[in-house]
Amino acid sequence: MTKQLPTHVHLHGALCPLQNARVSVFDRGFLYGDGLFETVRAYSGRPLALATHLARLRSSAHLLGIPLPRRPWAADIARLLRRNRLHDTDASVRITVTRGTAIPGLLPPTRPRPTVLIAATPLDEAIVEAQLRGARAVLLPFSRDGFLAEHKLLDYLPGVLGKVIAKRRQAFEAFYVNTAGYVTEGTTTNLFVCHRRRLITPPAEGILPGVTRSLVLALAAASGVRVTEKRLKAQDLFSADELFVTSSVAEVVPIIKLDERRIGNGRVGPLTQRLQGLYRQLVDKILQRS
Amino acid sequence: MTKQLPTHVHLHGALCPLQNARVSVFDRGFLYGDGLFETVRAYSGRPLALATHLARLRSSAHLLGIPLPRRPWAADIARLLRRNRLHDTDASVRITVTRGTAIPGLLPPTRPRPTVLIAATPLDEAIVEAQLRGARAVLLPFSRDGFLAEHKLLDYLPGVLGKVIAKRRQAFEAFYVNTAGYVTEGTTTNLFVCHRRRLITPPAEGILPGVTRSLVLALAAASGVRVTEKRLKAQDLFSADELFVTSSVAEVVPIIKLDERRIGNGRVGPLTQRLQGLYRQLVDKILQRS
Repeated sequence: MTKQLPTHVHLHGALCPLQNARVSVFDRGFLYGDGLFETVRAYSGRPLALATHLARLRSSAHLLGIPLPRRPWAADIARLLRRNRLHDTDASVRITVTRGTAIPGLLPPTRPRPTVLIAATPLDEAIVEAQLRGARAVLLPFSRDGFLAEHKLLDYLPGVLGKVIAKRRQAFEAFYVNTAGYVTEGTTTNLFVCHRRRLITPPAEGILPGVTRSLVLALAAASGVRVTEKRLKAQDLFSADELFVTSSVAEVVPIIKLDERRIGNGRVGPLTQRLQGLYRQLVDKILQRS
Repeated sequence: MTKQLPTHVHLHGALCPLQNARVSVFDRGFLYGDGLFETVRAYSGRPLALATHLARLRSSAHLLGIPLPRRPWAADIARLLRRNRLHDTDASVRITVTRGTAIPGLLPPTRPRPTVLIAATPLDEAIVEAQLRGARAVLLPFSRDGFLAEHKLLDYLPGVLGKVIAKRRQAFEAFYVNTAGYVTEGTTTNLFVCHRRRLITPPAEGILPGVTRSLVLALAAASGVRVTEKRLKAQDLFSADELFVTSSVAEVVPIIKLDERRIGNGRVGPLTQRLQGLYRQLVDKILQRS
């Protein structure tokens, strides 16, 4: 499946053909990156952990002072997936909320009317490939620091540049390295290393605390794996037995090469495989219940 | 003059009524903040230092890998100002360039078709007031760090939040304080202090090196003022004889109060007034030549 444009998006509370789906050039998302988003993966029409994603969306909207409209999110997403014939396959669903259109100026309007966009795209087949065979990652020469890093905000330029660098080096993902020399996270993923059967991931400070990161931490702990949240330097990644990344869309992706160096024996490791299996079981269980 | 919406903008190379000026919801400026901008001030229809602003736009577009379209920028701006009846007054002109519309995904398209927007708004009267009487500024509890800080990019959320905090505290501007404790710049301005007739401003590293900052540095040096580029801590601002900020739109604005403390004697200082005068003379000279 190559990437293609959806025929419809959900905009301002209604389905809308893509060619008509436009926002004002004075939308504050366009002018200032003044907004936030969530990405969930839908399995045969059913978004996973939607409530958790919506809780994070609400929390970040509160930080920005954007009044989040009440929407029947699950129903909106279900209609959108059906309309785009994505209800019987795997899809990536992004909810974008901006502070809406206003007279230009950094200072937000006192009564914003937010723009709400929901868009769904087919799952990128490169993700399936990476999950199966393992992928390559690279270290970035820059960080995504600061207190805003803990929120999923529209100002995503470091991520864009990170992906450009990853692509140039034929890598699946790129990791930020902060000014103190710690590897914090990937452009759209959280990272985990396995050292002597112990699972280690950076603490949820100054990073986007992923929904899938939490699920994987819980799964690992519940199945008897020793789990630690600890800051990691590049050397800790290079010397790891296994390295993998997590995200709602990509689930668990083994990283078998970092920059020019093999991680472990250069193959998908046993703990990574086990967690991939446990995650898939969890997905099945959650979806059966919903 | 209260703030009002312009009737027209310049979009994709043509004048366009504001109500029709829309971009796709898949414009990468809207989805990722993937773009850049410049703001220039136009004096009776004539933008100041446009060539310098365009040089910075080109340099940052190159960094992002966005091919900047060739436009007769001065003519575009002149038409836009006339159409909005802003040709005989002072106006703020913003050029926004995004990587354009593409299939969603962080990775940019290989052949982007950039979106180019030029918008003009009347000068905010609060700026004129602040120039005359001096204004208040506050210190922010967060920074805008990293190598991207040197470019004028669309991901401007720290600026939005900074302005919100400034407004809440009845201040004109807010200054970022970086993790090392240095005050770097304002949300839309550069800052200068005067200590015993010496002018000091933070070095142009990790900050947006303003066009007006350069002009003021040159003016000060040419008129015999001792000028130093040096990192400044909050204490250096509180103990300053004078403090002021610069930007293309706001020119030179005295800051007479920082957080709850008066700067100097709490009045517009003599060096600030002198530089305001020299800047106005320079503006007149440049515009007479153009």
